[in-house]
Amino acid sequence: MSYFITFEGPEGSGKSTVIKHVHEALSKTCPVITTREPGGIAISEKIRDLLLDEGNVMDGRTEALLFAASRRQHLVERVIPALNEKKIVLCDRFVDSSLAYQGMAREIGFDEVMSINQFAIDNHMPDLTIYLKLAPEVGLRRISDNRRENNRLDQETIDFHKKVVSGYNELSMLYPERIKVVDASQSVEKVVSDTLTIIEEYINFRGEYL
Amino acid sequence: MSYFITFEGPEGSGKSTVIKHVHEALSKTCPVITTREPGGIAISEKIRDLLLDEGNVMDGRTEALLFAASRRQHLVERVIPALNEKKIVLCDRFVDSSLAYQGMAREIGFDEVMSINQFAIDNHMPDLTIYLKLAPEVGLRRISDNRRENNRLDQETIDFHKKVVSGYNELSMLYPERIKVVDASQSVEKVVSDTLTIIEEYINFRGEYL
Repeated sequence: MSYFITFEGPEGSGKSTVIKHVHEALSKTCPVITTREPGGIAISEKIRDLLLDEGNVMDGRTEALLFAASRRQHLVERVIPALNEKKIVLCDRFVDSSLAYQGMAREIGFDEVMSINQFAIDNHMPDLTIYLKLAPEVGLRRISDNRRENNRLDQETIDFHKKVVSGYNELSMLYPERIKVVDASQSVEKVVSDTLTIIEEYINFRGEYL
Repeated sequence: MSYFITFEGPEGSGKSTVIKHVHEALSKTCPVITTREPGGIAISEKIRDLLLDEGNVMDGRTEALLFAASRRQHLVERVIPALNEKKIVLCDRFVDSSLAYQGMAREIGFDEVMSINQFAIDNHMPDLTIYLKLAPEVGLRRISDNRRENNRLDQETIDFHKKVVSGYNELSMLYPERIKVVDASQSVEKVVSDTLTIIEEYINFRGEYL
């Protein structure tokens, strides 16, 4: 059986490091791929270029629709084929990122952003989502430490970051069956082992073994 | 008061000719602009390039999301500012094209395509829509006559065209208050005068005069 597992959390929550370790651990016993949008998918990459083009003054809803379009194409070309080959797909950010960032932090509205994402996903919701939860202050310190050119974050960045975190917190309460919370303030080793425990329990619950 | 009027119909129904004449007639008494997506709006034009790039094998839902994104940006940059300046906006194709072509003819589903378009439009539905109705056979003959390089249409084109027309017919029954049907098999003069009568009646009903 195949599993579609997504990883979510604010900047500074350590998603890519955790995914790398989880990939290594799982791939000892099962076929695993790690991906993230746009992931080299030609159409999704072109959409990303459009989103990043600073010459464009883009409306927030246009942006949300473009993210959903990129998601759709990446899902069709990368995720669904891997699931059909009975692989475990680890995806760095997915629908909950749009809900937290655009729906909540950008205030377009949760239901609104959900509706276009449901269209994009067309019943391919993740089986399981790992939410790397971190107090806004801790994530902000990590972001700030990683910014070599300028260690100060502006107030807008700080407010936005806090809204993203509270968006994720709300989502984890709305979807407790799908979204499992991992305390990302712990050591990398502990975050990885907590994550692996959740994934293994989920797979055992589904009657499979790693 | 401003009016947002859209023109819909299959290929061969004469939309651009009719719009040209309606624009001329209305502009004698009111400020009017004519537009269509992408209409020179930078982001919408870039999305159009992506949609037309034949190197891309694009999923139908990705396509629908990109059309909605292009629509949103054109609406925000072109239509809404003109309405705010109390102009009459004549728009060649709008949400009903997506519903007829993608929702119905491409069989993605009416409700599904409506949901992403509602997100894109965000309460800016047209005040009035002129549907230039034409029997599929007549529209097909007109398309075929216009194709100089090859006067034969393939079966897929014919089937698709018929589905588009039946999609539009369904829409005109679903939204009789907004979508007004004009018999497009008549002479251009009669189609234009029928269209102007409908627009003038609508504007009078709204308590305005031309």
